[in-house]
Amino acid sequence: MRAHVYVTLKPTVLDAQGQTIANALRRMQHPGVESVRQGKYFVLTLADTLSTDDAKAEVERIASGVLTNPVIEDYTFRIE
Amino acid sequence: MRAHVYVTLKPTVLDAQGQTIANALRRMQHPGVESVRQGKYFVLTLADTLSTDDAKAEVERIASGVLTNPVIEDYTFRIE
Repeated sequence: MRAHVYVTLKPTVLDAQGQTIANALRRMQHPGVESVRQGKYFVLTLADTLSTDDAKAEVERIASGVLTNPVIEDYTFRIE
Repeated sequence: MRAHVYVTLKPTVLDAQGQTIANALRRMQHPGVESVRQGKYFVLTLADTLSTDDAKAEVERIASGVLTNPVIEDYTFRIE
Protein backbone atom coordinates (compact mmCIF):
# COMPACT_ATOMS: atom_id res chain seq x y z
CA MET A 1 0.00 0.00 0.00
CA ARG A 2 1.30 3.44 -0.89
CA ALA A 3 0.44 6.92 0.35
CA HIS A 4 1.12 10.05 -1.71
CA VAL A 5 1.58 13.13 0.50
CA TYR A 6 1.63 16.66 -0.91
CA VAL A 7 3.01 19.42 1.33
CA THR A 8 2.57 23.02 0.20
CA LEU A 9 3.06 26.42 1.73
CA LYS A 10 -0.15 27.94 3.09
CA PRO A 11 -1.69 30.33 0.53
CA THR A 12 -0.96 33.26 2.85
CA VAL A 13 2.77 32.49 2.89
CA LEU A 14 4.99 34.14 0.28
CA ASP A 15 6.46 31.46 -1.99
CA ALA A 16 9.78 33.09 -2.93
CA GLN A 17 11.04 29.95 -4.72
CA GLY A 18 7.85 29.69 -6.71
CA GLN A 19 8.05 33.36 -7.72
CA THR A 20 11.68 32.95 -8.77
CA ILE A 21 10.75 29.98 -10.95
CA ALA A 22 7.79 31.83 -12.46
CA ASN A 23 9.96 34.85 -13.33
CA ALA A 24 12.61 32.59 -14.86
CA LEU A 25 10.00 30.74 -16.93
CA ARG A 26 8.63 33.99 -18.30
CA ARG A 27 12.14 35.11 -19.27
CA MET A 28 12.62 31.70 -20.95
CA GLN A 29 9.70 32.30 -23.34
CA HIS A 30 7.00 30.55 -21.31
CA PRO A 31 4.55 33.51 -21.22
CA GLY A 32 1.57 31.29 -20.41
CA VAL A 33 2.76 30.77 -16.82
CA GLU A 34 0.98 33.12 -14.41
CA SER A 35 2.36 31.73 -11.13
CA VAL A 36 4.23 28.78 -9.64
CA ARG A 37 3.92 27.29 -6.15
CA GLN A 38 6.56 24.78 -5.05
CA GLY A 39 6.05 22.09 -2.42
CA LYS A 40 7.25 18.69 -1.28
CA TYR A 41 5.98 15.33 -2.46
CA PHE A 42 6.40 12.11 -0.46
CA VAL A 43 5.60 8.54 -1.42
CA LEU A 44 5.27 6.34 1.68
CA THR A 45 5.26 2.56 1.24
CA LEU A 46 3.19 1.10 4.07
CA ALA A 47 2.96 -2.46 5.38
CA ASP A 48 0.19 -4.40 3.59
CA THR A 49 -0.96 -5.67 6.99
CA LEU A 50 -2.49 -2.24 7.70
CA SER A 51 -6.18 -1.77 6.97
CA THR A 52 -7.05 1.23 4.79
CA ASP A 53 -8.50 3.05 7.80
CA ASP A 54 -5.41 2.34 9.90
CA ALA A 55 -3.23 3.45 7.02
CA LYS A 56 -5.16 6.73 6.72
CA ALA A 57 -4.85 7.38 10.45
CA GLU A 58 -1.12 6.59 10.34
CA VAL A 59 -0.48 8.85 7.34
CA GLU A 60 -2.50 11.63 9.02
CA ARG A 61 -0.24 11.36 12.09
CA ILE A 62 2.94 11.26 10.00
CA ALA A 63 1.95 14.10 7.66
CA SER A 64 0.79 16.43 10.42
CA GLY A 65 3.45 15.54 12.96
CA VAL A 66 6.60 14.96 10.89
CA LEU A 67 6.37 15.95 7.23
CA THR A 68 4.68 19.32 7.69
CA ASN A 69 5.46 22.52 9.56
CA PRO A 70 1.90 23.37 10.67
CA VAL A 71 2.75 27.06 11.06
CA ILE A 72 3.43 27.63 7.37
CA GLU A 73 2.46 24.45 5.53
CA ASP A 74 -0.66 22.52 4.55
CA TYR A 75 -0.84 18.91 3.37
CA THR A 76 -3.11 16.61 1.45
CA PHE A 77 -2.67 12.92 0.80
CA ARG A 78 -4.17 10.01 -1.04
CA ILE A 79 -3.72 6.26 -0.54
CA GLU A 80 -3.52 3.76 -3.39
CA MET B 1 -6.08 26.36 -15.58
CA ARG B 2 -3.65 24.63 -13.23
CA ALA B 3 -1.00 21.98 -13.76
CA HIS B 4 0.25 19.75 -10.96
CA VAL B 5 3.81 18.52 -11.61
CA TYR B 6 5.42 15.74 -9.54
CA VAL B 7 9.19 15.38 -9.75
CA THR B 8 10.79 12.30 -8.18
CA LEU B 9 14.20 10.70 -8.19
CA LYS B 10 14.50 7.84 -10.68
CA PRO B 11 13.95 4.48 -8.95
CA THR B 12 17.59 3.56 -9.56
CA VAL B 13 18.81 6.63 -7.65
CA LEU B 14 19.46 6.29 -3.92
CA ASP B 15 17.04 8.54 -2.01
CA ALA B 16 19.13 9.40 1.05
CA GLN B 17 16.60 11.94 2.33
CA GLY B 18 13.79 9.45 1.97
CA GLN B 19 15.77 6.78 3.85
CA THR B 20 16.58 9.24 6.63
CA ILE B 21 12.91 10.10 7.01
CA ALA B 22 11.92 6.42 6.99
CA ASN B 23 14.45 5.58 9.70
CA ALA B 24 13.29 8.52 11.81
CA LEU B 25 9.65 7.49 11.42
CA ARG B 26 10.40 3.97 12.59
CA ARG B 27 12.24 5.31 15.63
CA MET B 28 9.21 7.54 16.29
CA GLN B 29 6.88 4.53 16.64
CA HIS B 30 5.61 4.43 13.07
CA PRO B 31 6.51 0.78 12.38
CA GLY B 32 4.09 0.50 9.45
CA VAL B 33 6.35 2.61 7.21
CA GLU B 34 8.49 0.42 4.94
CA SER B 35 10.08 3.16 2.81
CA VAL B 36 9.82 6.86 1.95
CA ARG B 37 10.66 8.59 -1.35
CA GLN B 38 10.82 12.40 -1.35
CA GLY B 39 10.27 14.60 -4.41
CA LYS B 40 9.18 18.06 -5.49
CA TYR B 41 5.64 19.20 -6.20
CA PHE B 42 4.81 22.21 -8.34
CA VAL B 43 1.49 23.88 -9.03
CA LEU B 44 1.62 26.00 -12.19
CA THR B 45 -1.19 28.47 -12.84
CA LEU B 46 -1.51 28.84 -16.60
CA ALA B 47 -3.30 31.48 -18.69
CA ASP B 48 -6.90 30.47 -19.40
CA THR B 49 -6.36 31.48 -23.03
CA LEU B 50 -4.34 28.27 -23.56
CA SER B 51 -6.15 25.26 -24.99
CA THR B 52 -5.77 22.05 -23.03
CA ASP B 53 -3.51 20.60 -25.71
CA ASP B 54 -1.33 23.72 -25.75
CA ALA B 55 -1.22 23.67 -21.95
CA LYS B 56 -0.08 20.02 -21.98
CA ALA B 57 2.65 20.79 -24.52
CA GLU B 58 3.77 23.82 -22.50
CA VAL B 59 3.89 21.89 -19.20
CA GLU B 60 5.78 19.06 -20.94
CA ARG B 61 8.42 21.57 -22.09
CA ILE B 62 8.63 23.25 -18.66
CA ALA B 63 8.74 20.00 -16.69
CA SER B 64 11.36 18.34 -18.87
CA GLY B 65 13.45 21.42 -19.53
CA VAL B 66 13.32 23.42 -16.30
CA LEU B 67 11.80 21.61 -13.32
CA THR B 68 13.56 18.26 -13.76
CA ASN B 69 17.15 17.09 -13.91
CA PRO B 70 16.71 14.39 -16.59
CA VAL B 71 19.81 12.50 -15.44
CA ILE B 72 18.40 11.60 -12.03
CA GLU B 73 14.74 12.65 -12.00
CA ASP B 74 11.43 11.61 -13.55
CA TYR B 75 8.23 13.66 -13.69
CA THR B 76 4.53 13.20 -14.11
CA PHE B 77 1.86 15.87 -14.33
CA ARG B 78 -1.85 16.37 -14.53
CA ILE B 79 -3.89 19.39 -15.65
CA GLU B 80 -7.09 20.48 -13.98
